[in-house]
Amino acid sequence: MTKKRDRRITAIILAAGQGTRMKSSHPKVLHTILGRPMIAYLVDTLKNLGIDDILVVVGYQAEKVMAALRGDGLRFVVQEPQLGTGHAVQVAMTAVPVDVETVMVLCGDVPLIAGDSVECLYRLHQEKGAAVTVQTVELVDGAHYGRVVRDEQGRVLEVVQAKDAKDRPEVLAIKEINTGAYCFAAAFLRAALRELTPSPVTQEIYLTDLISLARRQGQGVEALRDADWPNLLGINSRAELAAATQILKRRLNAQHMAAGVTLVDPETTYIGPLVTIGRDTVIYPNTYLEGHTSVGEGCLIGPNVWISDSVLGDQVVVKMGCVITESRLAEGAQAGPYSHLRPLSDLREGAKVGNFVEVKKSTLHPGVKANHLTYLGDAVIGPGVNVGAGTITCNYDGVKKYQTTIEAGAFIGSNTALVAPVTVGEKAYVGAGSTITEDVPPGKLAIARGRQVIKEIKKRG
Amino acid sequence: MTKKRDRRITAIILAAGQGTRMKSSHPKVLHTILGRPMIAYLVDTLKNLGIDDILVVVGYQAEKVMAALRGDGLRFVVQEPQLGTGHAVQVAMTAVPVDVETVMVLCGDVPLIAGDSVECLYRLHQEKGAAVTVQTVELVDGAHYGRVVRDEQGRVLEVVQAKDAKDRPEVLAIKEINTGAYCFAAAFLRAALRELTPSPVTQEIYLTDLISLARRQGQGVEALRDADWPNLLGINSRAELAAATQILKRRLNAQHMAAGVTLVDPETTYIGPLVTIGRDTVIYPNTYLEGHTSVGEGCLIGPNVWISDSVLGDQVVVKMGCVITESRLAEGAQAGPYSHLRPLSDLREGAKVGNFVEVKKSTLHPGVKANHLTYLGDAVIGPGVNVGAGTITCNYDGVKKYQTTIEAGAFIGSNTALVAPVTVGEKAYVGAGSTITEDVPPGKLAIARGRQVIKEIKKRG
Amino acid sequence: MTKKRDRRITAIILAAGQGTRMKSSHPKVLHTILGRPMIAYLVDTLKNLGIDDILVVVGYQAEKVMAALRGDGLRFVVQEPQLGTGHAVQVAMTAVPVDVETVMVLCGDVPLIAGDSVECLYRLHQEKGAAVTVQTVELVDGAHYGRVVRDEQGRVLEVVQAKDAKDRPEVLAIKEINTGAYCFAAAFLRAALRELTPSPVTQEIYLTDLISLARRQGQGVEALRDADWPNLLGINSRAELAAATQILKRRLNAQHMAAGVTLVDPETTYIGPLVTIGRDTVIYPNTYLEGHTSVGEGCLIGPNVWISDSVLGDQVVVKMGCVITESRLAEGAQAGPYSHLRPLSDLREGAKVGNFVEVKKSTLHPGVKANHLTYLGDAVIGPGVNVGAGTITCNYDGVKKYQTTIEAGAFIGSNTALVAPVTVGEKAYVGAGSTITEDVPPGKLAIARGRQVIKEIKKRG
Repeated sequence: MTKKRDRRITAIILAAGQGTRMKSSHPKVLHTILGRPMIAYLVDTLKNLGIDDILVVVGYQAEKVMAALRGDGLRFVVQEPQLGTGHAVQVAMTAVPVDVETVMVLCGDVPLIAGDSVECLYRLHQEKGAAVTVQTVELVDGAHYGRVVRDEQGRVLEVVQAKDAKDRPEVLAIKEINTGAYCFAAAFLRAALRELTPSPVTQEIYLTDLISLARRQGQGVEALRDADWPNLLGINSRAELAAATQILKRRLNAQHMAAGVTLVDPETTYIGPLVTIGRDTVIYPNTYLEGHTSVGEGCLIGPNVWISDSVLGDQVVVKMGCVITESRLAEGAQAGPYSHLRPLSDLREGAKVGNFVEVKKSTLHPGVKANHLTYLGDAVIGPGVNVGAGTITCNYDGVKKYQTTIEAGAFIGSNTALVAPVTVGEKAYVGAGSTITEDVPPGKLAIARGRQVIKEIKKRG
Repeated sequence: MTKKRDRRITAIILAAGQGTRMKSSHPKVLHTILGRPMIAYLVDTLKNLGIDDILVVVGYQAEKVMAALRGDGLRFVVQEPQLGTGHAVQVAMTAVPVDVETVMVLCGDVPLIAGDSVECLYRLHQEKGAAVTVQTVELVDGAHYGRVVRDEQGRVLEVVQAKDAKDRPEVLAIKEINTGAYCFAAAFLRAALRELTPSPVTQEIYLTDLISLARRQGQGVEALRDADWPNLLGINSRAELAAATQILKRRLNAQHMAAGVTLVDPETTYIGPLVTIGRDTVIYPNTYLEGHTSVGEGCLIGPNVWISDSVLGDQVVVKMGCVITESRLAEGAQAGPYSHLRPLSDLREGAKVGNFVEVKKSTLHPGVKANHLTYLGDAVIGPGVNVGAGTITCNYDGVKKYQTTIEAGAFIGSNTALVAPVTVGEKAYVGAGSTITEDVPPGKLAIARGRQVIKEIKKRG
Repeated sequence: MTKKRDRRITAIILAAGQGTRMKSSHPKVLHTILGRPMIAYLVDTLKNLGIDDILVVVGYQAEKVMAALRGDGLRFVVQEPQLGTGHAVQVAMTAVPVDVETVMVLCGDVPLIAGDSVECLYRLHQEKGAAVTVQTVELVDGAHYGRVVRDEQGRVLEVVQAKDAKDRPEVLAIKEINTGAYCFAAAFLRAALRELTPSPVTQEIYLTDLISLARRQGQGVEALRDADWPNLLGINSRAELAAATQILKRRLNAQHMAAGVTLVDPETTYIGPLVTIGRDTVIYPNTYLEGHTSVGEGCLIGPNVWISDSVLGDQVVVKMGCVITESRLAEGAQAGPYSHLRPLSDLREGAKVGNFVEVKKSTLHPGVKANHLTYLGDAVIGPGVNVGAGTITCNYDGVKKYQTTIEAGAFIGSNTALVAPVTVGEKAYVGAGSTITEDVPPGKLAIARGRQVIKEIKKRG
């Protein structure tokens, strides 16, 4: 494989199951880890190996699974009803191109599997020219997993489901179990799938029956005992989902630290798999970087910050408690503590928003300051503008949204409402406490507030 | 026991001590774990076993302990001064009903003890018809605990306090120690307590002396070596309190995950023992659910959220940083990021409060939106009302609080002050920047702000 | 040493390196742990032992290192270029006073070293009258560390750098390695440094060559195998920095818990080394106390609070999400949730600031309340003043900052702007929604807002 596209491999990902032990009304493979569905991790791993033809077998809530993965260049087949893993591959096989030589079968609920594990399985399969190669691991307790039965020479004879082995204690005692990852010679697979029959115990059609079938046919059966067992088992419960999250978190965090990022507490730093971070950036605890987020060099982020699908330049400071979504912060921009940048916030070089400030779909040009208790929505704010405390753009009249424009060098006094659509001209000055409903000409002072009067205090209460 | 009330058992909880190693001016048993006093965990465990007659021996800051537990159906006796565990039971015995057959004695600082441990102790006691049955554990180092001395046949001879065994190295070497949990035959206990005399070393009256006394009298003494030792030892320091919090946190979180709740990071999710959560709810890290809180199905909560004594329906979204106390959020309601719902906030179906919004003692009917920088206190807000950014209900005049009413479908412009008592009528419209001091008739527009004027800018500075 | 000043010791701290594996553009020793540069921990440890003459060898970004440590009473020498540890000490030796008897050499990237380890090294050195005493530890894998080669009698012969031992497998197999901490007899050191020559492999001058030199000269060489190995190795990567942070965090937190502070989750509580906390204070998770911060007794702090360089009296409550910098909160003061106290905020007894309130360079006298959505900058607020929701001090006119004064007992209505410089007199009353531009006399009512008018609603949209 080695990162090159190989048209002769198709990978089938089994993702039709419900995952009963999750106790969920969502498909198991869509449960997320660090903001990404667990199945996406497997897809990424396969693509990184150069496997481009990926066929996902969906069934339970098929529409939801397909919708979540749309745009990733995957192909889907629907298995309905779900009659077992063998049945799933029977269904999928109809969509495997005729010129494919090798079919991999993998489980959609094994997000932690390393590319190396997949590659080793494939290599052994190729070297041995096997009909089927199965990945196995040794556990202290085989639990509910399928047992790998070998003969005295160590050759794999069959894989027996735990449920079907209730009267075979010597089988249940076996510690080598099937992980559910396989390589098949496509020709063998195509023919052999037709031979499968349901288990008398569970009525399911088992893919594992192909192993004894190949053996009976005298075809090559290989098994690769992979030592990386914690990463090869499926996620079957919320506890296992949480454990997988911990493992992936540590794996990704170790990579960022090795690349020169300081994570003050890697145990409480949650960085998604698509995030990039420049060196000498310091990330304080309890911070979340998700989706397609990129962070420059020398930034300070956190604690308690959530950033998703955003781009931060170098030397950006995001202080405690900020929430940033689909936004951009250019070099030297600052936010927080407690700034909320909603989608399409665009802070240019050195722009600064402070505490309890919300920005939405607005551009803050270089040097803009909006430091306190402010809402900027649908606004374009020119270079060097000072937005006073308590400024609010009234961008909504109950029906439509309107734009506020503040031109370069203007000064907006505190506690001001700007009723959009409205423009405050260059270097204009708005007096504190004003409600601005009409455009302010450049260089002028606008005031819109009541005159102060002094009275006697009436007896209260 | 098996969850049935048994009038012939009284449980005595020893809770009179100060807990010197806590270095605290609060009674030890009131130090909290996940928002609940440690003694309450033991009380819950006993009640779940069907033990209803629970007698708490208080002493150090007796009033505070009684106040904290009032309403739980417990009985109290005051031990003053505190002359040891034997003395505590002497005092308590005066309040044990005459028809009681079995008296359990337990320590108020052992919150982790499992119901099974208590049940096993009781069962052994009953089966053997013993005068006294003591719970023991084996430690690598007996430390300051009382040593269980057995004869060659393994029969318990006596329990010796570490302090009293300084010249008995063979006793100090014993690894089996007394946890401080006992069952007594009430008749034996009543008579034997009169025989106790203070230790010549510490001047304390030890309850453990009853063991050697029973032995001397030829009465049955049993000891149950319980394997669950980490959960049977008292909490004596802040470090042990923190460790117990970790154990209980993990125990409770495992239960929620098994029931279908996603905890993104169970290590930083703090859920109290009385909280219920529906399946498919996702809880992000660093979230606290305390007191009598119930959360519906399919909710999204966190990160960094604190919810206490509140009720959330299904599909509720509570985004980052919310604080919610004694409030209700009906199905589909949304809060956050950074909403503060103070007591008696009532968000009906689909109501939504956003960033930097505080609500207190207010009802937001279905579909209300209050998305930005707003304070709603003592308000009733009708269905579908849009509350603009920076709206403030002026509910306090320095003396009293007054109510604000906003009727269905009204629109409150941004940066508006509503001076209560005041009513904005159905479908009325309040202009941005207004200070509303008088009722607004239904369907009308109210404006209360200064007219905008444009002037030359005076030279500043 | 024993805490007494001993003029005859100079400690040389090696801090000239870049720390390539950190992948940083900052000097390694300035990377921080719990808010303090790692080198400062070593400096503190030495000072606590009474070693006052501390010479820091700087090189890479020397100015930055010196600037960070200025004011700590240290002396600096610049090593430029950096030709190895032997060269560093050659440079430093020019600044060691002639009457010094013992020169210690320590690494600036070993923040965890305990005072005991330093003391033991020094004592052995003194007792043996050695020319050089080196600190060593045993590792499972010697990795890149210098190996300690001993003869059959166990006497140290030499320390060989891993890089120089590539063709000496028997040396690489040695598990005892050099930590980089030494004591030298000053006279020996001064003479021997002149003999050092660069390594033919790396061209660096090794300080460790002094060991074989001393041996050849027949002078005393001692080695102290210290068991505390995790705390004696240098920090070479971000992962090791994170691990050291964990260790120090736990060490400091254990001390606070032992002294009677409740840490609800010590794993996510980050307390700097200079912080003091009174007993019965409870600190919720994800809280940061940094710099010169002192907290009184019986306080409640957190969760998610950041406090740096501030002083809190007894019974202070700092609720969720507060950020407090260089401020004071007197007994019984309260902040939060989500208060931001910027430098020079001074909350006197019982003063209270609430949610989404920012304070900067302001004094809030006893009993002041500013509970909601408020900005107080450059203000002096008298006893008992009630500051309504949405109050903003307009302290900045685009050029200068001005002061707001509110005298005792005044009442500021909600949504008010106070345009500084301005004074609201004692017991005066400001109506809601006012913009106050002129002083309000004591006892009077000031209103500055538009009159309310009712109109028909124009068709919108």
